[in-house]
Amino acid sequence: MTDVKKTLMSGMRPTGELHLGNYLGALENWVKLQNEYNCFFSIVDWHALTTAYKEVEQLDMRIFDMACDWLAAGLDPKQCAIFRQSDIKEIAELHLLFSMIIPLSWLERVPTYKDQLQQLKEKEINTYGFLGYPLLQACDILVCQGEVIPVGEDQVPHIELTREIGRRFNHLYNSEVFKDPIAKLTENKVLPGLDNRKMSKSYQNYIRLTASPDEIMQKVRSMVTDPERIRKDDPGNPEVCSVYAYHKIFNTDQAQEVATACKAGTIGCMQCKKILAEKLTLLIQPIYEKKQELVANPDYVKDVLNDGAKKTRAIALQSLEKVRELMGVR
Amino acid sequence: MTDVKKTLMSGMRPTGELHLGNYLGALENWVKLQNEYNCFFSIVDWHALTTAYKEVEQLDMRIFDMACDWLAAGLDPKQCAIFRQSDIKEIAELHLLFSMIIPLSWLERVPTYKDQLQQLKEKEINTYGFLGYPLLQACDILVCQGEVIPVGEDQVPHIELTREIGRRFNHLYNSEVFKDPIAKLTENKVLPGLDNRKMSKSYQNYIRLTASPDEIMQKVRSMVTDPERIRKDDPGNPEVCSVYAYHKIFNTDQAQEVATACKAGTIGCMQCKKILAEKLTLLIQPIYEKKQELVANPDYVKDVLNDGAKKTRAIALQSLEKVRELMGVR
Repeated sequence: MTDVKKTLMSGMRPTGELHLGNYLGALENWVKLQNEYNCFFSIVDWHALTTAYKEVEQLDMRIFDMACDWLAAGLDPKQCAIFRQSDIKEIAELHLLFSMIIPLSWLERVPTYKDQLQQLKEKEINTYGFLGYPLLQACDILVCQGEVIPVGEDQVPHIELTREIGRRFNHLYNSEVFKDPIAKLTENKVLPGLDNRKMSKSYQNYIRLTASPDEIMQKVRSMVTDPERIRKDDPGNPEVCSVYAYHKIFNTDQAQEVATACKAGTIGCMQCKKILAEKLTLLIQPIYEKKQELVANPDYVKDVLNDGAKKTRAIALQSLEKVRELMGVR
Repeated sequence: MTDVKKTLMSGMRPTGELHLGNYLGALENWVKLQNEYNCFFSIVDWHALTTAYKEVEQLDMRIFDMACDWLAAGLDPKQCAIFRQSDIKEIAELHLLFSMIIPLSWLERVPTYKDQLQQLKEKEINTYGFLGYPLLQACDILVCQGEVIPVGEDQVPHIELTREIGRRFNHLYNSEVFKDPIAKLTENKVLPGLDNRKMSKSYQNYIRLTASPDEIMQKVRSMVTDPERIRKDDPGNPEVCSVYAYHKIFNTDQAQEVATACKAGTIGCMQCKKILAEKLTLLIQPIYEKKQELVANPDYVKDVLNDGAKKTRAIALQSLEKVRELMGVR
């Protein structure tokens, strides 16, 4: 029987070590999907340059860390290709070839484009490559014949654009080289920062996916609770408490009970945090331990990335051979 | 003693067989310069896609024809690397990497950009790649460390942009990877079409660089002379005669004499054309004969292109290795 699994493709920018928000936003989902699909997961270092071309130090280390975190969280390199984008030169070539057929207006009209320009205006990112960002993303997907793309709501227009690009190519060259990829929406579990603000690397208000038990305890202790609750037997308001937000996601079985006790003033914040920390430790500790092993075996991690690149390059080259022939170039 | 020759880089779009106008505009000059410089000459097939992504049939044949014409006209593959752009994948990669650091406004402000958009508006070339055309040209030059770029006046802004791009890279990454290329202006010998209009493939008003003696005679016979000169002993006006324009360029020694005789009505147009055809045959016949040999040996021409690509790839890879390291990617 032939392999009838569909191809799933996704990627993350190499931001370094992941936190629980990243895990919930994508990685947890990838781990679940890896058996069901033929998966390609890319650490998109070229994409990182679109907004951070001046901050290239330690990119290698951030990539290594991210690969470790993916593996520690359960991505299985036997099931899926885990690779570094810049190892696949065919993506750059496809980007150039597609650039010739993609109307400028398609890129100018991408909803995220003007928003991001505005938000990041101090970073001088009004570059040719920043405009081409969604095209590069389309190349990531199309080069490995991606069909199912797990993304958040905000990325849906990019997948639609990817589909349009593939179709335009197929139409112009009277071919069926590219399939229509579809967005598979990731369930939107928004995890607030430990201080109730948006979770962000710059605020340091997060728990690392590979935190040690001590670090988890320390981070949970720092979490912001109901500011009106002074003594431990005051009734509290779980709705304004970051600890409760985490209970709802990581301790679903007990969340209701915890909330009731909080409102009744029968559980103190310290005890409530201790329960959460224990629960998080159950989730994180195996990931933490696996990470320690991986960090001690960097050659293994490099081999995983090289094998993933090899597997991806094979399919990328097949795509490029068709594209080159149809466009009349080498 | 080390090789102190500077590196010269230039290219042509693969329009197929060349005519005398192409020869005067660039190729004649390249042949003269090939001993003086370390030369790279590129048949820029990716560039051809920027304005003709729908017309890709026979691109291979046009490239083969152009390579033959270059060789027939005297480019010596022992002296210079003659190659096909799309064989050098490092150019596509550099194009992507540079895209990250090049302000969009630099490309939008290139003088030829809006002009060309206007002129070619029926061709639907308002694409991302068309905007990036001068960036791709900069990559052609910088990837092989080009220092001297023979161009016409209209291309000077592109060379200035190339210099700015190289400098921006050097500055951002505190490096000296790229040298400042300079434009070497090609002497502007404007050859009118045989019918006194602008020479153009679509008017068919040109003489092929590799025309047979019969074809030369036939083409020269069709040339437009002074329309007021009816009989062969009427006095003529050489200034409005395309034949005289060709005498001035290809028969400099006799041009004055011919003009005097024309004005005096002592030479008829047929005789004047015969003199020109003989002169052109002296120039073209060796090129024509060499072309016949080359067409009969396509494997030799392919070897030349492969060897040229190999030589270019070696230097391109050196450039890319530095760029990748400085930008933190593979």
